[in-house]
Amino acid sequence: MITKADCPFCHADIKRSVFAEEGQFWAIYNIAPILPGHSLVIPRGHVRSIMELSEEELGRFMTFARRVTKTVLEAFAASGFDWAIQDAEEAGQTVPHLHMHIIPRTPNDLPHEGDWYNKLEQSKAQAIDSKDRPNLAPDQLDRYVCALREAFDQAERSG
Amino acid sequence: MITKADCPFCHADIKRSVFAEEGQFWAIYNIAPILPGHSLVIPRGHVRSIMELSEEELGRFMTFARRVTKTVLEAFAASGFDWAIQDAEEAGQTVPHLHMHIIPRTPNDLPHEGDWYNKLEQSKAQAIDSKDRPNLAPDQLDRYVCALREAFDQAERSG
Repeated sequence: MITKADCPFCHADIKRSVFAEEGQFWAIYNIAPILPGHSLVIPRGHVRSIMELSEEELGRFMTFARRVTKTVLEAFAASGFDWAIQDAEEAGQTVPHLHMHIIPRTPNDLPHEGDWYNKLEQSKAQAIDSKDRPNLAPDQLDRYVCALREAFDQAERSG
Repeated sequence: MITKADCPFCHADIKRSVFAEEGQFWAIYNIAPILPGHSLVIPRGHVRSIMELSEEELGRFMTFARRVTKTVLEAFAASGFDWAIQDAEEAGQTVPHLHMHIIPRTPNDLPHEGDWYNKLEQSKAQAIDSKDRPNLAPDQLDRYVCALREAFDQAERSG
């Protein structure tokens, strides 16, 4: 059982992966992406379930996630995306800190359109620090985070 | 290519599956549920992508979906849930009418937690009118819809 003390999304290292923020929410680049651009939107605080957000927070979480998605799609030249939340352990949530997956998709990027979900399942036990999927090299992660931060900031400025 | 004219979510028959509504959004019971309680939240109008909603509409779509989820979890004695949106054909969206899947989950309901996604993929071509998954008998569908409608209305009344 992962507690707040050993939650990977509460660890100080997570800041290296943050490329966008708004109020209490962060967008982070997945250190072991299923597909290029695989990102997560999370609350900064240790909130387990989407049920714990107020209605206003839920609205802001989702509008932020959508702006993040637009940036990621553009940066990775993707035309579609999957959004997924697994809420509770029995639903596949292993890091007990709310996170929405944003997976950019392009035609024929996987043999079967649904394969991303299996990949997610296989490695979810160490979602941000996967030992099953190869981690990005630190400088590679930095490069993605830096490029996305710039793209997001620019999109925000141009409204 | 499914157009508005032959969109299953725009067909008059869909009303039979509606158990909750709020403004421009509906909650429908999936005629071929992956797991008991498998429901969808959709806009009433033929909107393809979540990108097409205004920020205010997106907020209302999600807060409505969450209230629907609470009702479904209670009605089916489920403790967790999966939310999934497939946006664009390359992401697995075959009915080009925005729909968010709500899948109630209970411990050990599937051999592997991720199996629901494969089931979704296998039958997504006819999401609301699946020929691959067994459809509910009409009176069974009516029973679920009726029970959920009552539960949702009651929850709304008690605020």
